[in-house]
Amino acid sequence: MSSHHVVREKQEPALLIANGEGCSFELMGQLLEWSPFVVVLDHAIHRVLDLGIKVDVLLGDFDHNVDIDEIASRHYPLEIVHAPDQDKTDLEKGIEFLIERGFPAVNIVWATGRRADHSLTNMTNIVRYKDQIKIVMLDDYSKIFPLVGTFEKWYVKGTPISLVPVGLVEGIQTEGLKYNLQGDYLRLGYRSGNSNEAAEDGFVKISASEGDLLIMECWD
Amino acid sequence: MSSHHVVREKQEPALLIANGEGCSFELMGQLLEWSPFVVVLDHAIHRVLDLGIKVDVLLGDFDHNVDIDEIASRHYPLEIVHAPDQDKTDLEKGIEFLIERGFPAVNIVWATGRRADHSLTNMTNIVRYKDQIKIVMLDDYSKIFPLVGTFEKWYVKGTPISLVPVGLVEGIQTEGLKYNLQGDYLRLGYRSGNSNEAAEDGFVKISASEGDLLIMECWD
Repeated sequence: MSSHHVVREKQEPALLIANGEGCSFELMGQLLEWSPFVVVLDHAIHRVLDLGIKVDVLLGDFDHNVDIDEIASRHYPLEIVHAPDQDKTDLEKGIEFLIERGFPAVNIVWATGRRADHSLTNMTNIVRYKDQIKIVMLDDYSKIFPLVGTFEKWYVKGTPISLVPVGLVEGIQTEGLKYNLQGDYLRLGYRSGNSNEAAEDGFVKISASEGDLLIMECWD
Repeated sequence: MSSHHVVREKQEPALLIANGEGCSFELMGQLLEWSPFVVVLDHAIHRVLDLGIKVDVLLGDFDHNVDIDEIASRHYPLEIVHAPDQDKTDLEKGIEFLIERGFPAVNIVWATGRRADHSLTNMTNIVRYKDQIKIVMLDDYSKIFPLVGTFEKWYVKGTPISLVPVGLVEGIQTEGLKYNLQGDYLRLGYRSGNSNEAAEDGFVKISASEGDLLIMECWD
């Protein structure tokens, strides 16, 4: 019985593979370890199948460069979801698809790097879904997620933690960072919260009263 | 007489090399063709010198991983600018240095890719300097610049042009795009202007009444 016939309880995060820069085998391997439900966006499918990854759903508008029949013949079973809406990015369609299917969480890879317009829009668009599904975006240098309510997590001293406002974020309160904020605001393009870090081994706590804040754990 | 002794009139854009993902030799070669004034940020200096690029200024806080004496011995003449301000990113310091030196324009490379916090902050922070110096950020997939006044340029039909708002941008007017905006707003994270394109061979015109808009020419 292949892993495709395992009945999944949708407790584990789904894995959404987008069209940007590929990630390391190590990161992909970690994310695939628990046999997540895998959704691939449009022509990323070629690179994904070349890696031998089992895919559950292929989603896209398939305008060009995707031969559905050829792919379906290589990979069975595969659910094909045609999503032609030109007002949404492939990533938005993929996230909305997973919300509709009832997934509580998703890890997203290959959504950063390469084209700057896609990369910047992908990183920031996740905030609009923050109350509907738990989203973590990952690449070889970064773990990105939106602040929802009060964030609290234990970190090793010195762990880099950047606070990136998607627009204006007000009333930011932090504890446990090297440079704490006390009701301050951050504003993209003008006042950034980059290159902060955990002050000690211990809990870091972050909240904001207004706006969309991205928390980023990044490393070189 | 080496190119370092050419008296420059500061008419050509300076070249600022940051700490992100490297670019192709081809792009770097194009940017170096007119022997620009070259500023390198912090520990990017090692990768830059390995490429045999002549550097005018090395700027950074030099907290770690940069042995100034060793570098100065490899590369002469080299102006070292120690910029320890912890409230600014290296890129901000580099741009402000060039403004102080009277440069009217700068091309920026290696500022995108790799760490998502640096990449997103670098791309968006350029808007705060848009009235002081003409900025173009480039990588292998993207050309990024802030809208200043009314933008007008001739494009080949189908050229991808994305409009990325840094926060909220209002009163956006465009002509010559496939999907034109007529006084509309864009808002980062919620309403994006990605994946537009030139409708015909001809001029594209873009303006906005309020806010900071990035124009991105990107390709796969």
